[in-house]
Amino acid sequence: MLSFQTVPFAYFSSHQVPPDNLTTVIHDTDSESDQSSPEVIKHPANMELEESKEMTEQGEPVEVPAEEPAVPTEPLIPAEYEKLVKGCEENPEDFNGWVYLLQYVEQENHLGVVRKAFDAFFLHYPYCYGYWKKFADMEKKHGNVQVAEEVYRRGVQAIPLSVDLWLHYMSFIKDNADHEDPETPGRIRAAYEHAVLAAGTDFRSDRLWEAYINWETEQEKLANVTAIYDRILGIPTQLYSQHLQRFKEHVQNNNPKHFLSEEEFVQLRVELAKANVAAAANGEGEEATPAEEVTEIENMRHKVIESRQEVFNQNEQEVSKRWAFEEGIKRPYFHVKALEKTQLSNWKEYLDYEIENGTPERVVVLFERCLIACALYEDFWTKYAKYIEGYSIDGVRHVYKKACTIHLTKKPNIHLLWAAFEEQQGNIAEARRILKALEAAVPALAMVRLRRVSLERRHGNLEEAEALLREAIASGKNTSEMSFYAVKLARQLLKVQRSLAKARKVLLEAIDKDQASAKLYLNLLELEYSGDVQQNEVDILACFDRALSSPLPLDSRLTFSQRKVEFLQDFGSDINKLVTAYDEHQKLLKENESAKRKAENG
Amino acid sequence: MLSFQTVPFAYFSSHQVPPDNLTTVIHDTDSESDQSSPEVIKHPANMELEESKEMTEQGEPVEVPAEEPAVPTEPLIPAEYEKLVKGCEENPEDFNGWVYLLQYVEQENHLGVVRKAFDAFFLHYPYCYGYWKKFADMEKKHGNVQVAEEVYRRGVQAIPLSVDLWLHYMSFIKDNADHEDPETPGRIRAAYEHAVLAAGTDFRSDRLWEAYINWETEQEKLANVTAIYDRILGIPTQLYSQHLQRFKEHVQNNNPKHFLSEEEFVQLRVELAKANVAAAANGEGEEATPAEEVTEIENMRHKVIESRQEVFNQNEQEVSKRWAFEEGIKRPYFHVKALEKTQLSNWKEYLDYEIENGTPERVVVLFERCLIACALYEDFWTKYAKYIEGYSIDGVRHVYKKACTIHLTKKPNIHLLWAAFEEQQGNIAEARRILKALEAAVPALAMVRLRRVSLERRHGNLEEAEALLREAIASGKNTSEMSFYAVKLARQLLKVQRSLAKARKVLLEAIDKDQASAKLYLNLLELEYSGDVQQNEVDILACFDRALSSPLPLDSRLTFSQRKVEFLQDFGSDINKLVTAYDEHQKLLKENESAKRKAENG
Repeated sequence: MLSFQTVPFAYFSSHQVPPDNLTTVIHDTDSESDQSSPEVIKHPANMELEESKEMTEQGEPVEVPAEEPAVPTEPLIPAEYEKLVKGCEENPEDFNGWVYLLQYVEQENHLGVVRKAFDAFFLHYPYCYGYWKKFADMEKKHGNVQVAEEVYRRGVQAIPLSVDLWLHYMSFIKDNADHEDPETPGRIRAAYEHAVLAAGTDFRSDRLWEAYINWETEQEKLANVTAIYDRILGIPTQLYSQHLQRFKEHVQNNNPKHFLSEEEFVQLRVELAKANVAAAANGEGEEATPAEEVTEIENMRHKVIESRQEVFNQNEQEVSKRWAFEEGIKRPYFHVKALEKTQLSNWKEYLDYEIENGTPERVVVLFERCLIACALYEDFWTKYAKYIEGYSIDGVRHVYKKACTIHLTKKPNIHLLWAAFEEQQGNIAEARRILKALEAAVPALAMVRLRRVSLERRHGNLEEAEALLREAIASGKNTSEMSFYAVKLARQLLKVQRSLAKARKVLLEAIDKDQASAKLYLNLLELEYSGDVQQNEVDILACFDRALSSPLPLDSRLTFSQRKVEFLQDFGSDINKLVTAYDEHQKLLKENESAKRKAENG
Repeated sequence: MLSFQTVPFAYFSSHQVPPDNLTTVIHDTDSESDQSSPEVIKHPANMELEESKEMTEQGEPVEVPAEEPAVPTEPLIPAEYEKLVKGCEENPEDFNGWVYLLQYVEQENHLGVVRKAFDAFFLHYPYCYGYWKKFADMEKKHGNVQVAEEVYRRGVQAIPLSVDLWLHYMSFIKDNADHEDPETPGRIRAAYEHAVLAAGTDFRSDRLWEAYINWETEQEKLANVTAIYDRILGIPTQLYSQHLQRFKEHVQNNNPKHFLSEEEFVQLRVELAKANVAAAANGEGEEATPAEEVTEIENMRHKVIESRQEVFNQNEQEVSKRWAFEEGIKRPYFHVKALEKTQLSNWKEYLDYEIENGTPERVVVLFERCLIACALYEDFWTKYAKYIEGYSIDGVRHVYKKACTIHLTKKPNIHLLWAAFEEQQGNIAEARRILKALEAAVPALAMVRLRRVSLERRHGNLEEAEALLREAIASGKNTSEMSFYAVKLARQLLKVQRSLAKARKVLLEAIDKDQASAKLYLNLLELEYSGDVQQNEVDILACFDRALSSPLPLDSRLTFSQRKVEFLQDFGSDINKLVTAYDEHQKLLKENESAKRKAENG
């Protein structure tokens, strides 16, 4: 199973091991240990884990049974909790409501409601890394170590770029590891690998790399340390120059035999030997003395640093290009509060820069970072989806899904784009489902209803398209909304169903209900105009007269009157009608002038 | 021949003698005297009169021959005059230019140019009554008495409501009458009758009535005086109560036998005798004593005044209803300067009052008065024409003609109304002539050109209609004007000629020349939309893309982009195109936002 959050990486990652394989490794390891030690199975925490696993396998939390054998019967769920959680569910945008709920459950210390509350919270705010740690800590406090680990696993899956969460997770793993087990270092190393693969290209990932390096150093795996430096020295990060400094110390303080891989060590020796032979051929062909051996080590160190220096220089250039953008990122973490405009434009410019200059991997990482800070901004999600469109259809779908189902559940534009995308892919039913779901979440949005109509029309369901518009008219909140849909329906009947009679009926009914809508009269006029204007003269004039005798405001009636004169001049058959219309127009003009004068005089 | 100016009266006048018959009487009398006295024929002034008559018969002035037998050879027409008159003809709205010209010719005292100048002036400003008198005075100064009279006759025909001009004219007639001739009083009386019939219902006509009364008093025709009082006492005028006062004096100071008509005198005597008989039957059956005779005269005076008092009271009510309106008329005479708004609205309200409450005769007199003061205001002419429409088609035609050919030669609206009126009467050729003439006078007015197009279209001359629009495009002053006509032509080709291909060609050519006209793209779009939107999807999208890649301003392109998304949503076949259009729209939106931000930051 590929986790949703990390999927985009899969389309670009040049790493050999997909990050989720590592999760699976840890997970499987845990499962193995579950199976291999029966007493652990009996441990209440393990019960929790079993249940917890079921939860994630189903993709949504299930209620954890209240009875836990080793603990006294759980207290009943308090009414206060029900009240608080109801408020949050009804108004999930109110972040403070959630904060209050989580504080409340923490104080109550009732694991059942803690889990319910956190699970509900993370459906809306998976990017709040601190709450993942808090949740894991509470599980651990209750002795459910493996459930806590599962929480961490869900956390880093939800927000894989969170260096802090990874660091907490790594501490947790190390603290809880069985150090007697010879497999443990391998497992920890795999976890670090998972962490740096997920978050290690982040400009601010230095602490994670350092932790990894320190751990390998403690393990006295100096060649591994060198290999990690070889990776970080090529990644533009904030503390890039500090890494070189420390790498140099690492080289100076240790013997190449220890900190180089066997391959590099042998290669370097051969190179240096060849250089010596060349020197000897120049008249110095003696055996190596101890002093010469020291020289060889120094030469090796020199060579090692020299080759890294080149990578560093290259990397320094990359860092310098991004430095201003990175400086501009003042709030890299998620928050419900709006970002300043300069922050938003910094992100936008940074993304544009990286799209223009960076590798797809870097672009995706930057998008993922951006969409933690800017998770509530439609534009960035849209930009992300558009970017991925060039690489992977599934990637686009995942971006839209994440945006629409987690962060922007009520933002119409991105839903419309998602539906359009699915329709483009030929998934009409899915497009229909997305639009209907959006309409259920945010009722009575014209743009959504019109998009539904449009979808049905494009796929030949004219009756359904008509029905959707009629329903919209019937359930319009006010006359102006009803008239809006009536105009749309009339146009569709005229232009798509090609029924002038049906269209006219719709407009006349609408005018009946909304007699002061200039738009309705204009549309009726357009409809009557659409045919043969000479044959339709009577209908056209009737429409003008309908507007002129309506309760429309005077300036509107003036416009209709002006247009009536123009119509009669341009297309009318009868000079008498033209003269009469002209006279009536003059009267209206005078009426208007005197009204204006009155208004001016107070 | 009914004079043009007085025609409207003819449709309402209840008078037995149409006013122009009187003119004819005077005229014929003159002609008779011309024929009966050969020496007069030889008089140079008569030569002038003959020529002058020819002028008015032709309806326009002819150049008067410069040679006059009794006067030394006229000097040549000075170059300065030619220069001044040219300026006036080119810019007839410049009233000061005319004033200067008339001053100039007066100083030069060159009768040939005086006549030319005044004739030219009166074509544009017939309502300047003072200049008619000035012109007549100059003719008289040169000894051309009958030419001077002809000038007066033309003057009162041009402005029959001018009490001042009538008074000058009457003085002139009396001063120049042959008092030996027994026909003279009859002729003068006829002239007074002409004057009061033409101007006597004017609220400010009192001086004219008084002059008439004074003259009849001088003639010792006291019954005639009473008859005139009987008329003026029933007409609402400014000095209505003074007339009653003077009438009472007239009654007190004279014997009923002299100031009553025989008919009224006999009737009153019979009435009073009956009353005496009734009194005698009550025991006083004696013969009339001298004292009783005095009593009879007093009783008659009492009865006479009593019956006039009733008419007066009725009239006083009518006066009171109009008093405020008349007070509001601050400038009853013609002037090129604009009238204050309050003056204009006073006229409007007065007319509305009179239309509602007065007789058609009163309404017409008020319109004629109003159109002296407001001769340069289209609205009043239009109102007048509309009013007369209910009574006489010829009357309407005369109003329009007077307005359009004299006072408002360059105002389009009233010309359009005139043309529409003639078209309504079936005079298509006349309507066409009016519009063409207007276009010649005021070139490049869209409303006029479109009305010409409209006229041809209505009468089936589609080729001519198309040609007029193409010519308008070709001679457009700028791209926006060309585009305006292109849109009109395209609509006509599509909707009237039913040729989508021709229409599209017109718009594409227009876009070629005016690439930043949103209107053109919108019309092209409308054109492509007008057919089957599903079949035309490619053309419609091409039109959107044409607009989107045009040099249109960003906000315009945003609108097109928005509409493209809507089109694809409402009618498009392909979700991919919709998504792409949506993306592009988002890009434009962002572009727009950053442009706005830039603008805000200076």
